[in-house]
Amino acid sequence: MDPLYVIKIGGNIIDDDLKLSSFLQAFTHIKGPRILVHGGGKMATRLAESMGIKQQMIEGRRVTDAGTLKIVTMVYAGYINKNIVAQLQSYGCNAIGLSGADGNLIKSRKRGSNVPAGIKPSDYGFVGDVETVNDGLLKSLLSSDHCIVVAPISHDGNGLLLNTNADTIAMEIAVAMIRHFDVSLIYCFEKEGVLMDASDEGSIIPQIDTAYFEELKMKGVVTDGMLPKMQNAFSAINAGVSHVSIGHADNIKLIIDNKSGTNILA
Amino acid sequence: MDPLYVIKIGGNIIDDDLKLSSFLQAFTHIKGPRILVHGGGKMATRLAESMGIKQQMIEGRRVTDAGTLKIVTMVYAGYINKNIVAQLQSYGCNAIGLSGADGNLIKSRKRGSNVPAGIKPSDYGFVGDVETVNDGLLKSLLSSDHCIVVAPISHDGNGLLLNTNADTIAMEIAVAMIRHFDVSLIYCFEKEGVLMDASDEGSIIPQIDTAYFEELKMKGVVTDGMLPKMQNAFSAINAGVSHVSIGHADNIKLIIDNKSGTNILA
Repeated sequence: MDPLYVIKIGGNIIDDDLKLSSFLQAFTHIKGPRILVHGGGKMATRLAESMGIKQQMIEGRRVTDAGTLKIVTMVYAGYINKNIVAQLQSYGCNAIGLSGADGNLIKSRKRGSNVPAGIKPSDYGFVGDVETVNDGLLKSLLSSDHCIVVAPISHDGNGLLLNTNADTIAMEIAVAMIRHFDVSLIYCFEKEGVLMDASDEGSIIPQIDTAYFEELKMKGVVTDGMLPKMQNAFSAINAGVSHVSIGHADNIKLIIDNKSGTNILA
Repeated sequence: MDPLYVIKIGGNIIDDDLKLSSFLQAFTHIKGPRILVHGGGKMATRLAESMGIKQQMIEGRRVTDAGTLKIVTMVYAGYINKNIVAQLQSYGCNAIGLSGADGNLIKSRKRGSNVPAGIKPSDYGFVGDVETVNDGLLKSLLSSDHCIVVAPISHDGNGLLLNTNADTIAMEIAVAMIRHFDVSLIYCFEKEGVLMDASDEGSIIPQIDTAYFEELKMKGVVTDGMLPKMQNAFSAINAGVSHVSIGHADNIKLIIDNKSGTNILA
């Protein structure tokens, strides 16, 4: 099967015009079918502040209330997605930007909407857990030489847009595409990979398998934000994605060739 | 050739949730290929106000400065476009939302960027005049049973997004598609059609041809906002669009059947 690269870039790259443009040029030079999933960055938070919308926190978790959903829809599916697409077009990459609502690309269920009767659901707000990915639409657009840029907004099929984690979307897309392609999933962020010592960029762990991951969790090496990202990485490799790596956005080509970043093994 | 309906809805419908949802249901029931072009509505202005961004006016014309471009990109290509798409999906219409940057759908030139040397260009800001429409992309998406929802944002091919008049985009798309379809272009807004007396919704003019349009302009019947809309309508009919009408968003089916609104004739 032909290779497909599903690449996710995080907020820190999006917030930095120079880093973003350098990444997008490197992305353009990757050969063959590719899908870019982008996160949010700080613009949504800044916009909420400038509009006087307070970020509601429940037990340390940010809640996507109606005002926040409006903002992330505008910023993720509007500003960030379209600016990335316009920039890729200027580099000669025929990008097309989609949210999960477009062509029913990502259907999700509002979190907490399926708790058993009698149990009080936590109020997660307008957050969606992915149910289906429209792999046929992606395959069709890729076969007409488009590269696809996905914003982390899904829909529930009943007219509701939902905020959805970009790492999870990248994983779900990668897994949905294994029936059509030999899929690589690359998580790009501002660090060199999974680090043994968070303060030392030289302490990259080159490979992590399931057993070692358990050890790293127990030792407290993998914590906080890295935990869900790595769980997504393992979900992908266990579901049949051929190559899963986590590394620095500057090194996308090296990561693809397994010469940089942390490689996730089953 | 198969019929294609290119339908434009204006801001007054977008600003009213009930009117919009009723229009989108009627739109869903139109048979065959269709493209919806939407305008902006008041949300962009309200958002600018809440962010303290002042609308800059030069000679009575609103200028799309960098801050305004950011806002219209967020509101038009993000919030409005994705909410319309999600709503259409919930009605069973397989909508896909695009800006002019996506798949190089609408390439434009920044207004004032091509004035001869020695002449000081007026500062129009980030406004684009349409150069090309990617009819092949539209045809391909329509042939896979998508309906397309277009936001009035174009790009210059060099990474710049540009604010572009939605009436003009609808006209340019309609004209670009005449090589593939028998095209109807319908401008929907909050009035019954072109009115002889703006204060009397019963005074619809059922048909206007070029000669009568000149007469109506001279008499001051057609003024202000109606003038560019009608100029777009005549550009379309003169370029070979089969049917061009202007009417109320509530009457979309009747307008298609020429039983409501104002029909534009060459």
